Amino acid sequence: MGVDIETPLRSFIEDVASNKPTPGGGSVAAVTGALAAGLTSMVCRLTIGKKSYEEVEEEMEQLLKDSERLRDRLQALAVEDAQAYDTVIEALRMDRSTPEAKEERGRALQQALRDAAEVPMETSERSLDLLRVAQQVATKGNVNALSDAGVAAHLALAAFRGARLNVEINLSSIKSADYVAKRRSRLEAMSHEVEKLHTRSLTVIDERL
Amino acid sequence: MGVDIETPLRSFIEDVASNKPTPGGGSVAAVTGALAAGLTSMVCRLTIGKKSYEEVEEEMEQLLKDSERLRDRLQALAVEDAQAYDTVIEALRMDRSTPEAKEERGRALQQALRDAAEVPMETSERSLDLLRVAQQVATKGNVNALSDAGVAAHLALAAFRGARLNVEINLSSIKSADYVAKRRSRLEAMSHEVEKLHTRSLTVIDERL
Repeated sequence: MGVDIETPLRSFIEDVASNKPTPGGGSVAAVTGALAAGLTSMVCRLTIGKKSYEEVEEEMEQLLKDSERLRDRLQALAVEDAQAYDTVIEALRMDRSTPEAKEERGRALQQALRDAAEVPMETSERSLDLLRVAQQVATKGNVNALSDAGVAAHLALAAFRGARLNVEINLSSIKSADYVAKRRSRLEAMSHEVEKLHTRSLTVIDERL
Repeated sequence: MGVDIETPLRSFIEDVASNKPTPGGGSVAAVTGALAAGLTSMVCRLTIGKKSYEEVEEEMEQLLKDSERLRDRLQALAVEDAQAYDTVIEALRMDRSTPEAKEERGRALQQALRDAAEVPMETSERSLDLLRVAQQVATKGNVNALSDAGVAAHLALAAFRGARLNVEINLSSIKSADYVAKRRSRLEAMSHEVEKLHTRSLTVIDERL
């Protein structure tokens, strides 16, 4: 159970493939985002210190900081996603033999479901942030690493879409209409932004290749 | 240098983020495909043996075999991508002090570029194969694991697009017009198929949720 970021890559993918529910899609979406952040960091580092990119050096230093911060956070979200899932399972297993126990279980479950929705919600937010970085890096980074910036944009889009799907699954069991409506509207707004940034990144890569 | 699939996940992502050119976008695209295959294998395993899915049990056993074969192959392609890159770098460093040496270097470089194009070319093919598996799994697999099938479809699409970008980068330096035209036309045909399968997977997930 759970997710350990120190596990060898091969074993991590094997754990995903197993019949254990974690690591599942939520953690894998976050890992994909972290891999995308790894690529944008690499493009920054292959740009910084190069004579022909002196003009954008300061900007690349800032983008590298943003990219590394997002990489760290997305790695942590991969772990948190599995923990949040386990809390939902615990709530589902709570006693429901009396009306009082049933009510308590219901409250605990609703809280666990909200917590479990917040993790992929943040993965969505960070994937959007990362697409902003990818678009900047594709526009101004070392032209020799353009395909890496492009792969980062494709992966960040997939991370966003995968995380969104995981939020929606949780929302479908959450009873507070207000909570659900707020999250849905934020996801919709993010989705437009993400698709726009993805398209822009690929257009600029096409132009610079 | 290179890619070791036994590296801890955290170190692997750190190596991507470093200023070393490998692991780069080609390897990361293949790893993303392998993660997607991990998710389709998980959905198969969460379907097999369940009473309400008896009807599709045989089909799920076959899909699991396909999925695990693709996972293995995509993991290997992540390693091969870095090796092929190193061979291109070696060719670029060959002597070109005499016309003969220059010609030999040119031949070696063209061969290395072709080899380096074939790796992401196969990653594209296997990502297409995987989207076929993801669509089947989304259509017939355990409904409780639908979001995992959806994340797999998003990731397989990103793996295809990322691999395609890596083929195209290599093709732009390959001189044989016939070789380049054949690969471009295959990529175009695969791309249509991949987008269609991705859309279909999400439609069926929407319907079943």
